[in-house]
Amino acid sequence: MQNKRIVLAAHPNPDVTPSCFALDEVPVPDLNPGDVLVRNIYLSCDPYMRGRMLPSRTYADPFAIGEVIPARVVGQVHESRNPQFPVGCFVWSFLGWEQYTRVANGQNLNQIDDSIRPLSHAISIMGMPGLTAWVGMMRIAQPQPGETVFVSAASGAVGQIAGQLARLAGARVVGSVGSEHKRQHLLERLNFDAAFNYRESGYESELDRACPNGIDVYFENVGGVALEAVLPRLTIGARIPVCGMISRPGGSTLAGIRGIECLISKRAEMTGFLVYDHMHHMPRYLQQMGRLMAAEKIVYFEDIIDGLENTPGAFIEMLCGKNVGKRLVRISDDPNLGTD
Amino acid sequence: MQNKRIVLAAHPNPDVTPSCFALDEVPVPDLNPGDVLVRNIYLSCDPYMRGRMLPSRTYADPFAIGEVIPARVVGQVHESRNPQFPVGCFVWSFLGWEQYTRVANGQNLNQIDDSIRPLSHAISIMGMPGLTAWVGMMRIAQPQPGETVFVSAASGAVGQIAGQLARLAGARVVGSVGSEHKRQHLLERLNFDAAFNYRESGYESELDRACPNGIDVYFENVGGVALEAVLPRLTIGARIPVCGMISRPGGSTLAGIRGIECLISKRAEMTGFLVYDHMHHMPRYLQQMGRLMAAEKIVYFEDIIDGLENTPGAFIEMLCGKNVGKRLVRISDDPNLGTD
Repeated sequence: MQNKRIVLAAHPNPDVTPSCFALDEVPVPDLNPGDVLVRNIYLSCDPYMRGRMLPSRTYADPFAIGEVIPARVVGQVHESRNPQFPVGCFVWSFLGWEQYTRVANGQNLNQIDDSIRPLSHAISIMGMPGLTAWVGMMRIAQPQPGETVFVSAASGAVGQIAGQLARLAGARVVGSVGSEHKRQHLLERLNFDAAFNYRESGYESELDRACPNGIDVYFENVGGVALEAVLPRLTIGARIPVCGMISRPGGSTLAGIRGIECLISKRAEMTGFLVYDHMHHMPRYLQQMGRLMAAEKIVYFEDIIDGLENTPGAFIEMLCGKNVGKRLVRISDDPNLGTD
Repeated sequence: MQNKRIVLAAHPNPDVTPSCFALDEVPVPDLNPGDVLVRNIYLSCDPYMRGRMLPSRTYADPFAIGEVIPARVVGQVHESRNPQFPVGCFVWSFLGWEQYTRVANGQNLNQIDDSIRPLSHAISIMGMPGLTAWVGMMRIAQPQPGETVFVSAASGAVGQIAGQLARLAGARVVGSVGSEHKRQHLLERLNFDAAFNYRESGYESELDRACPNGIDVYFENVGGVALEAVLPRLTIGARIPVCGMISRPGGSTLAGIRGIECLISKRAEMTGFLVYDHMHHMPRYLQQMGRLMAAEKIVYFEDIIDGLENTPGAFIEMLCGKNVGKRLVRISDDPNLGTD
């Protein structure tokens, strides 16, 4: 049996282009005792992956040339020599952009609970992106009733959850996105109190309009000019949880952030975090979020593209902000969907 | 009776020069019932004052052209129509660079406790600069035994206390200063574990040498290139209390800070604070620091210049880092000193 894979052909320089990727085909490896072969169904496209495609180290090791692109994946056990993971069960793990992955000893493979449907939620709202939003918003920023919360990249995988959680906590929530379509989406489907398209007239004037009393919480998703616009508009005691800066993924070669000294006058706190430190909260998060989803108090949008060969394009589009919601690629049949 | 004063003659553009100041002379005003006339003895020269000499608003209102330069002052009550402040008692308050200040109703005037000697300590280690160091280091950063703490501007009014407090908490303390003389001072008199002169070879290589295991706490006093050098050298869980950024007092017109995204990978926290929010801790601080001083566990250095007319020069020198320790100007007789 053959395994089609997307491998890293070249490091971005600095943009991610189709020529950074190649499609190849290798035999599916044989299983040793304890091994599991996963048929991959949903592949994740996440902004942090761009950083790891670069040759320099960011907060994790860079991806290697010629190797399959590592990514979070939802799949189904196709063959198994491990009684913990019988054939047919649904799993998620950090696997790769390929049709099949052999998981030695089933290591780090997670069965997906029956309560998590659609399956793709295991790597979106009921997975790391969801926990990222919850940790940053509910444990670090802790928005209070009546406060103004600004979320950048607000319709994305993490931003849409961060914004809705803040609103449930009683805050007034303002989101920025990169298109008029997404702006409407924030207002009509995600229930943001205000929203703007930063490509229209930038952050400064829009934040003045949308946040007349200043910004109590900034859920930092993008860095760069968004952060520079936020800093002088912070209120006293403001909190900035920082889980990503997608506008500057290459890091220190880009221009610096002006206005950091505003942290002093506003007695504000900027707190970096990585979701991996907070995995012990996942059970609690899943229980809370499961209830909120069941009660339709939180909605979630995924933007799913079909076909392994379309994965590089789907990823590049996501980096350009073409997706509305969490970007995933479906590369094989999801038996839980009625028609597919 | 005449009152000589230093007034703001022009805003810095952008440097503070002697022509920013003028010496004038006005009559000492008559007292109304409740008023107190203070003979000023020690005038404070603090880095934050440069920001308030600029026409744009920083975290407090700018100083006005033609007005006396506001500053913290230690003095003695010279005339009084207020029974709370009898003639001869020692006081400190936010007064100005002048010989005499009339304090309407004795408002915001503080008697200096007999335990605080020399008198100048009321506006240095036993006053705001001391509390600033304590809040930033002991309440925000909370250094742990064995951690590495880096203090910039380490021989200054605040830095020398911050460093000594961290060392008493069991941390290894590294300081940066702007001259070889001050480097020796840190090592020999302030007991820092390591010290370097940033003008010699910059921050990066010196921090690599002095902090081989990274920086757990950075007591941020200067901003700019110091902060840029610190960010990639932070350890996981690092804390950066920020009370001032004297290298960029003009704020947002200067270049930005590169490497802020290091806060994410290092799960680090940058916390701005103003000492004014923490005044309720002053009694507790004074008690603790009084004990530490009495036990000679903390030493403190002041760098005192004589003569009102020398105040602008003393201030400009301080901005250039010419002082070793807290810069003050003595403009009249301190009766507590044996020979003066």
